[in-house]
Amino acid sequence: MNEHIAPVPLDKAYRLVNHGPTVLVSARHNGVDNVMAAAWACGLDFSPPKVTVVIDKIAATRALIEQSGYFALQIPTVNQAALTTQLGTTTLMSDPDKLAHSGVELFEMDGHALPLVAGCTAWLVCRLIPEPHNQQTYDLFIGEVIGAWADSRAFRDGHWQFESADPALRSIHHVAGGHYYAIGDALNTRS
Amino acid sequence: MNEHIAPVPLDKAYRLVNHGPTVLVSARHNGVDNVMAAAWACGLDFSPPKVTVVIDKIAATRALIEQSGYFALQIPTVNQAALTTQLGTTTLMSDPDKLAHSGVELFEMDGHALPLVAGCTAWLVCRLIPEPHNQQTYDLFIGEVIGAWADSRAFRDGHWQFESADPALRSIHHVAGGHYYAIGDALNTRS
Repeated sequence: MNEHIAPVPLDKAYRLVNHGPTVLVSARHNGVDNVMAAAWACGLDFSPPKVTVVIDKIAATRALIEQSGYFALQIPTVNQAALTTQLGTTTLMSDPDKLAHSGVELFEMDGHALPLVAGCTAWLVCRLIPEPHNQQTYDLFIGEVIGAWADSRAFRDGHWQFESADPALRSIHHVAGGHYYAIGDALNTRS
Repeated sequence: MNEHIAPVPLDKAYRLVNHGPTVLVSARHNGVDNVMAAAWACGLDFSPPKVTVVIDKIAATRALIEQSGYFALQIPTVNQAALTTQLGTTTLMSDPDKLAHSGVELFEMDGHALPLVAGCTAWLVCRLIPEPHNQQTYDLFIGEVIGAWADSRAFRDGHWQFESADPALRSIHHVAGGHYYAIGDALNTRS
């Protein structure tokens, strides 16, 4: 864990995903770690903060979430675009060493037994709110955010700082097939 | 309706929202039109395409959706950032002329009785899939996309073309309080 990581107040945690970035989803159960990519993650509530994420039935991460009751969303950067594609297109099912082969560096946050991805700009640790109908019918998972952190070089004072941060720290937004857009210029519609 | 608007095949419709833009949500019931802004809209399925959108109980648009069973999501541009903030912070409850006062220009797509916002880059007409538990507990609405169109200057051949389009047509991604980021540079992680 690097010295730039700082807690984000839970009432500001929604801002970490409000601009629609592609995320990495981590989970751990019974000694098995996994990380996958997801473009369909979204804010759901402010306080307590909640999020949704769509996780296909073929994803190995899904069983880890269902069994452990926890997952993390984290925001990868321009620097991690190739890693994000790799984590999103390889599976633990066919490669038990998927994480080692990807070169992803993992760390833990004190008190949360989840494999977090180093180099991201934000991390949201979530407790699964079980909704079997949504999970089965729509592959839709709901989590309550119980801890949030960000790299203060990219997010501080409750706001993303992309306009002044290293462009390599910008969030990435998946279109299809390994093609992304980085987040761009700031626009203020109020003074 | 301008000459650049072209249908998007339904199996590519998810790509219109995959990169996480803030959207405008339109609905009509019993002669009443409304349009609101929503940052929490997300892809849910590919085929048939489905989307989620979070709509607070205080939003006048919500009752129009529940009563009519239809809504539209549309993608506003950098040019429309101030309009998006206005449509997201004023309400039909206190200003019955909200739409006229905003200056929004509306149009209809043949066969769909919904007030669509001119000047957006994409439109997704959705049939509500009623899920009362999600709607009541989480303010979460699910729709099946039954028609999709895009401005071919910004989206064509199944892909956003932001890298070559007028920057004023870029999508906007809300952070908080009328502060957005425009979508930025393209990144390709595969050849």
